[in-house]
Amino acid sequence: MKRKIILNLAMSIDGYIADENGGYDWIVGDGSNHLDTIQKWDFNKFLENVDVVVAGKNCYDQNILGEYKDKKVLVATSKEMEDHDNYRFIKDDIVQTVLEERKLPGKDIYLFGGGKLVDHFMKADVVDEIIIGIIPTILGKGIPLFLNNGQEIKLKMDEYIFENGIAILKYSKR
Amino acid sequence: MKRKIILNLAMSIDGYIADENGGYDWIVGDGSNHLDTIQKWDFNKFLENVDVVVAGKNCYDQNILGEYKDKKVLVATSKEMEDHDNYRFIKDDIVQTVLEERKLPGKDIYLFGGGKLVDHFMKADVVDEIIIGIIPTILGKGIPLFLNNGQEIKLKMDEYIFENGIAILKYSKR
Repeated sequence: MKRKIILNLAMSIDGYIADENGGYDWIVGDGSNHLDTIQKWDFNKFLENVDVVVAGKNCYDQNILGEYKDKKVLVATSKEMEDHDNYRFIKDDIVQTVLEERKLPGKDIYLFGGGKLVDHFMKADVVDEIIIGIIPTILGKGIPLFLNNGQEIKLKMDEYIFENGIAILKYSKR
Repeated sequence: MKRKIILNLAMSIDGYIADENGGYDWIVGDGSNHLDTIQKWDFNKFLENVDVVVAGKNCYDQNILGEYKDKKVLVATSKEMEDHDNYRFIKDDIVQTVLEERKLPGKDIYLFGGGKLVDHFMKADVVDEIIIGIIPTILGKGIPLFLNNGQEIKLKMDEYIFENGIAILKYSKR
């Protein structure tokens, strides 16, 4: 089975993935479980099917990639950096690097973020699945997931999960 | 019961409400009904509880307000225009006008769009309910719903409906 490149992240209703200061404390539910689906979001199960994580340099700097120690973490960076532990720093074309990686045998590839990194993959139209958790908040300002000037990508809905007012929507390419 | 100001529109996953040319032909489902909820989206029922529609001048110019003949349609405009039929042109502060309207007895107030008009209401934090139909498409570019530099508005999810791959999410203020 072909390895998939899967974008998976949370965004506000107005499309932000972090607040102005890069903060995530708004990424919470609405405190009510009355609309929850029976199916729950199982992040650990998602990670079981992943062996490569792709992230931008900002994510690395924020120390939020520590829970992926058993995976290869590809970090896109504009400057030369030395690989260490499970981190591989990619100064070359990150999309091309991931597409080469995908040709090798392995599990799925988790496109972690942030927005600038994701944009490269969206514009190359190489994202196979999109899992978005829509947080019940209009953030007003912050760091956007989707940048401008992309192409249209038609999707189909594969699954939905509701938990605590968060809508987790899974799509793949139509 | 207090009249509510209800934002109700469709947007792409990346937050656009119209394509670059103002077009809406991408506002369709994914062609599959296997995830449909039993509950369907009933636009006519929604309209039954509405007696005022608020829209921007662009929407008026596009002739897409014709189905609201039995309602008062408030059109925000920057220049002096003469009222006709059910259209009232508002050159003054549209938010203030709608808030005055809300004090009178009546049904709910449907905030139709577009983005610039909606932004005034979001920034004044006077939108009571938000019903967003998320179209299973990443549009890439177009006319955004949410502009920048707003304030954070915490919401709670009140209902969800799925139809043909479109997620209809209803929120009110937390």
